[in-house]
Amino acid sequence: MQLAHGAVETPCFMPVGTAATVKGLTPAELRAAQTQVVLANTYHLWLRPGLDTIEAAGGIHRFMAWDGPILTDSGGFQVFSLESRRRIDDDGVTFASHLDGSEHRFTPENVVAFQQRIGSDVAMVLDVCVKLPASHEELEGAVRLTTAWARRSSAVAVHAQTKLFAIVQGGLDAALRERSARDVIELDFPGYAIGGLSVGETREAMYAMARSTAALLPADKPRYLMGVGTMRDCIAAIDCGVDCFDSVYPTRCGRNGRAMTRGGELNLFNAAFVRDFSPLDPSCDCPTCTAYTRAYLAHCFRSKEMLGPRLLSYHNVYALNALMREARDAIGAGQWETFKARTTLAQSSQSSG
Amino acid sequence: MQLAHGAVETPCFMPVGTAATVKGLTPAELRAAQTQVVLANTYHLWLRPGLDTIEAAGGIHRFMAWDGPILTDSGGFQVFSLESRRRIDDDGVTFASHLDGSEHRFTPENVVAFQQRIGSDVAMVLDVCVKLPASHEELEGAVRLTTAWARRSSAVAVHAQTKLFAIVQGGLDAALRERSARDVIELDFPGYAIGGLSVGETREAMYAMARSTAALLPADKPRYLMGVGTMRDCIAAIDCGVDCFDSVYPTRCGRNGRAMTRGGELNLFNAAFVRDFSPLDPSCDCPTCTAYTRAYLAHCFRSKEMLGPRLLSYHNVYALNALMREARDAIGAGQWETFKARTTLAQSSQSSG
Repeated sequence: MQLAHGAVETPCFMPVGTAATVKGLTPAELRAAQTQVVLANTYHLWLRPGLDTIEAAGGIHRFMAWDGPILTDSGGFQVFSLESRRRIDDDGVTFASHLDGSEHRFTPENVVAFQQRIGSDVAMVLDVCVKLPASHEELEGAVRLTTAWARRSSAVAVHAQTKLFAIVQGGLDAALRERSARDVIELDFPGYAIGGLSVGETREAMYAMARSTAALLPADKPRYLMGVGTMRDCIAAIDCGVDCFDSVYPTRCGRNGRAMTRGGELNLFNAAFVRDFSPLDPSCDCPTCTAYTRAYLAHCFRSKEMLGPRLLSYHNVYALNALMREARDAIGAGQWETFKARTTLAQSSQSSG
Repeated sequence: MQLAHGAVETPCFMPVGTAATVKGLTPAELRAAQTQVVLANTYHLWLRPGLDTIEAAGGIHRFMAWDGPILTDSGGFQVFSLESRRRIDDDGVTFASHLDGSEHRFTPENVVAFQQRIGSDVAMVLDVCVKLPASHEELEGAVRLTTAWARRSSAVAVHAQTKLFAIVQGGLDAALRERSARDVIELDFPGYAIGGLSVGETREAMYAMARSTAALLPADKPRYLMGVGTMRDCIAAIDCGVDCFDSVYPTRCGRNGRAMTRGGELNLFNAAFVRDFSPLDPSCDCPTCTAYTRAYLAHCFRSKEMLGPRLLSYHNVYALNALMREARDAIGAGQWETFKARTTLAQSSQSSG
C-alpha cells in the first residue's frame, strides 16, 4: 500500500489515535513498536481541536508530530452510535456534540474535505452504519445511502496526497453486501473497507461475512476491516483476505491492565501476579518485557500509577505489530496455515482472567 | 555525595517516586532528564506492595528498574499528616492505612530496618513533624522525641550500602532548631535534613529558618531540605546553603497542565495556548519542547489525553534538573550571585495563569 507518508506492508494493524494521540504513546514509541499507520477519528478532531487549528498547525502530521501515514475515518461510525443525538437525511447527518451539545452537520462532501484539508493519507467516505440485528429495510436503506454518498464523495476534488477509500455495508445480508460491494467497486476507489461488522453479531457470523465480502473486492487494492484488534481476530481477519484493520483494543486493554501475549491474554489485577517476577511475555523483546516484571506492572495498576497503562499499552501495540510482521513473513514463506493454526491455538488455550 | 548506586553532584533536585514510580516517567527517561537521585516513600511502599514483595524482587532498585541512587523518607511526614488516623507515643506511632483502614505501627527501629532491607541508598530517621503554627510546647515535644528517635535509629545495624540521615525539627523557633541540630550532630550521622518546613508558614519565614539551620549543620556533609520543588524555591534553597531537595511539584504540575519554564510557569489550559504553535519553552532542548507545540500539549490536556501529563512531567523534571546543572556550573565558576539574580527575576516576571 503506497501512501503519501510511506509504503505500508500488509497485513497491517493500525493503532487508533482518536484525538490525534495514540493514548499514552509518543510517535517515537509508535515507530519503535513498528507501527506503520496511525488511525485518527474525524468526529473527534472535528469537534476538538477543529479544522482551523489543525490547518494552522500545518496539518495533522505536524500537529501530532507523527510523520508516518495517517488514516482518518469519516466520523460515520461515531455519529451513528450517538443514536438519540443525531438526525439523518438523504443529504447528510446532523448531530449534537458529546462535549457541549453544540449542533454540527456532516455531509459526504464536508467530511472528505475535512480529511483532505488536514492532510490524511487515507480518507474514508461518510457511510451509514447500522447496529445489528437490524431489519432488511433498514440495512437496504443504509446500503442505498452509503452508495449515494460514496458517489458524491468521489466527486470531491482531493489532493494527490489523500487516497479516498469507500465502505461496503449490508449487515449480515449476503445479497445486500454483494450489491453494496458492486456499487462502490463501479466507482473505482483506490481502496475498500468492510464496514458495519463487529457491531453486535456473533464472531462466526462476522468472519463468514468478512470472508465473503473480501472475496468480492479487487485483490489488487487494499481491503480494510474496521474495528478488529485482538490477536485471534487479527489472524482471523488476515485469513479472510483482509489487508489492514484498526482497533482501540490494544491501548484500551493497556489502560485496563489486560496484557496481550502470545500465550493468551493476562489480567494484571489477578492476585497471582503480585509476586510474579517473570517478564510479562517471555517471548517478547519489547522494553516493557525486558525491563519490568509482572509484579511491578501489577503494582502500578493496583496503585493506579500512570506508568502501568503506559508500559502495557506499549507492549500491546508492539506485540500485535510483531504478530503482523510474523504473519507477513509466514505468508511470504508459504507457511500461513501453519502459522495461523499455531498462533490461534496459543491464544485460545492459556487465557487468564 | 557518594552513594552506593553512584556519586551525586550537588546542588541536586530529587524527583519523588511515591509508589516506586516517578509518576508517568520511565527510569530511562529519568536518566535522560539527568535525574541523579529518586526519592520513594516508606509509608506508601510499606502498605503496597509491602516489604516481602520488594525483598522478593531483589530490592527497590530491581523492583522499579532504576539503578541510580534512591533516597527513602521515613514515613514520618505522611503518618503525621494522617492526623485523626494516627496515635503517637514515646516508642513510635500507630496509624490506620489510608488504603484499607488496617492498623500499622512505625517505630524508629522498624522504619530504618525497612529502608535498609529494601536497599535504599539513603534512609531517613523517623521524626515528628508538626504542622505550623504550633505551640512552643508542641514543638519542644517534637524536637525531644525526634532526637530520642534519632539516637535509637543510629543504634540499628544497617548495610554499608545504606546511609542514614537525621532530621532537624523545631518549627520557626530558632532556639529549638539550634538544640535539635546540636543533638543530632552529636550523634554523627552521614547527612542531615531540615524537616518541618513548608508546612504552613510564609515563604520568607521558611527561608530565614532554612538558612539559619543550614548554617548550623556540618559543611562537609549533605544538607537536605525536604519538600522544595519550584524553580524559584530551588534557587532560594541553594542560596541558603542546602545541597539537595525533593518535591512532587514538577510531576504534580506536569499532570495538571502547569509548565515550569525559564520565563515563569505557564498554565496550558489558558485559551491563548490553543493556537500557539511555538515550543513550550524555546530555551529548552528536551524532547517535549523540540517535538511538540504548546497548541498540541494544550489539546492533550483539554482532551484529557495521558500524553499531556506524560510529556509535561518529563519537561518539568528535565527543566528543573537543567537548572540545577547550571546552578552547579555557576557556583563552580564563582558566578552564583549573578545566576541567582537572573533566574529568580525571570521566574517572578512572566508567570502566566
